[in-house]
Amino acid sequence: MSATPLDRLFLALADGTRRAVLARLAAGPASVGELAEPFDMAMPSFLDHIRRLEDLGLIETEKQGRTRICRLRPGALAPARAWMADQRQLWEDRTDRLEALLAELQQTPKSDSGDTT
Amino acid sequence: MSATPLDRLFLALADGTRRAVLARLAAGPASVGELAEPFDMAMPSFLDHIRRLEDLGLIETEKQGRTRICRLRPGALAPARAWMADQRQLWEDRTDRLEALLAELQQTPKSDSGDTT
Repeated sequence: MSATPLDRLFLALADGTRRAVLARLAAGPASVGELAEPFDMAMPSFLDHIRRLEDLGLIETEKQGRTRICRLRPGALAPARAWMADQRQLWEDRTDRLEALLAELQQTPKSDSGDTT
Repeated sequence: MSATPLDRLFLALADGTRRAVLARLAAGPASVGELAEPFDMAMPSFLDHIRRLEDLGLIETEKQGRTRICRLRPGALAPARAWMADQRQLWEDRTDRLEALLAELQQTPKSDSGDTT
């Protein structure tokens, strides 16, 4: 099976550096240099993470003179968030059904009459 | 950098088969055989996915006679969901600040007096 867009999105999130970059960019645009600063990582490796986030459409980058500015694309996490919300909904629907069943069982008058074949 | 629990959680979600298994189990427990049925996949490969979901604490499995029953662990997606919610919060905080700033700028009386050094 080849990777779907949702596979690639979750894969992008499966890395602490990439998650930290996304969290930092939620506060506003930043240059690649500013983003790299907190990490003890060679620049080529860091740039791989940036490129990956850009390829996935999670961030946009723009050259301004000798600096590359990165900014978040706000809707880009939506498919992953929607999948999570669906899971929660499925689970809650099931819990609702179990509760309804329980309520029904509790309302049924108790009977010790056993089987009346 | 070694993989953190959150890394591993997102990695587990980066696969369509594993996501489908989780979605199926949200509807209630199922045997490995039932879970495998919709997939055109060799059983050992499918079992690798099951094992991975179990190792991550996303599902529990229990041997019942010759069948292995799988069930979802409801809270197991919570760390991933919390991270997503944090991102949304960060972004909304920023949008709120931008809106407040915009409102402030619009209320400032316009002046064409230029710089008054």
